[in-house]
Amino acid sequence: MKRYVKGDFPVSNVRRFLEPGPVVLVSSAWKGETNIMTMGWHMIMEMEPSLIGCYIWTENHSFELIRKSKECVINIPEVELATTAVKIGNCSGLDVDKFEKFKLTQVEGEEVKAPLIKECFANFECKLVDTSLINKYSLFVFEVVKAHVAKSPKFPKTIHYRGDGLFMIAGETVSKYRKLFKPEML
Amino acid sequence: MKRYVKGDFPVSNVRRFLEPGPVVLVSSAWKGETNIMTMGWHMIMEMEPSLIGCYIWTENHSFELIRKSKECVINIPEVELATTAVKIGNCSGLDVDKFEKFKLTQVEGEEVKAPLIKECFANFECKLVDTSLINKYSLFVFEVVKAHVAKSPKFPKTIHYRGDGLFMIAGETVSKYRKLFKPEML
Repeated sequence: MKRYVKGDFPVSNVRRFLEPGPVVLVSSAWKGETNIMTMGWHMIMEMEPSLIGCYIWTENHSFELIRKSKECVINIPEVELATTAVKIGNCSGLDVDKFEKFKLTQVEGEEVKAPLIKECFANFECKLVDTSLINKYSLFVFEVVKAHVAKSPKFPKTIHYRGDGLFMIAGETVSKYRKLFKPEML
Repeated sequence: MKRYVKGDFPVSNVRRFLEPGPVVLVSSAWKGETNIMTMGWHMIMEMEPSLIGCYIWTENHSFELIRKSKECVINIPEVELATTAVKIGNCSGLDVDKFEKFKLTQVEGEEVKAPLIKECFANFECKLVDTSLINKYSLFVFEVVKAHVAKSPKFPKTIHYRGDGLFMIAGETVSKYRKLFKPEML
């Protein structure tokens, strides 16, 4: 398993890791219980404040833990954790302690009680800031209040779900289009 | 420029192309005017009906065209169109006719008046079904009512924005994790 050395990262820039569309692991805690869910439906909604929209299904055991604690951590796994991410999505926190079952390490957060997953490339501590879309759309709007990102690699090899059990693995990152951007667009 | 042969595609499965997180081109039409914008902030919100949440900034010229016509087409470009996608994002429909300027071909939709972009891998005709989040979040909730997808390649080489002028190019698609999924999860 990779061991990352992480540093603080500006919350307004978490788009650099979420906008490409990776599968993420969402960790949560409530009254002594922790859980992890695998999530593919999320989007950046604003940079300052740093807002993320996340679809969390009512059938997910994490749904109530996050709704009640009003917190979570969005963790970004690299491809080495793909098997674990699938298995996490395939079982329920009702039946198993996922940190224990998948030998993942809890790291204490600075701003939230939900645990960070040490084995992930990045960890974004989030507060639930808008509950009004949960009933209609299962849409949780979070604000990232603290971000921890590995210092290396510069660009994580994330996994991107295509449905039907297929994943696209992040390919190369290219800078050759950068010169086409107006400075104010960067 | 690639020439695609496209076929109908089930609208409930458009996640296969959007969930990996590609940059898309959104085309629109209103009162004889057409426009195209480049968009990176979107998410699947439901499969049936096929709902997509999209962040469209008030400063985008497309904002009013889409708000008034209540329609758009979400087009997925492959990497061959990366330069065009950046340039589309760098100019305004106020000043230029983007179809003309970028030599893109309009194809008539079946369910919407907004034009499809022929040079894109896939075209999803969308109706605006929820306007209630536009003021607060610039969030447009669309229903995909008709989908056209190229028969080849099977997996498009999409571009994924990392911010700061950098793009991640879609890497390989792998099926080796498929056996780990419970059948009902596929």
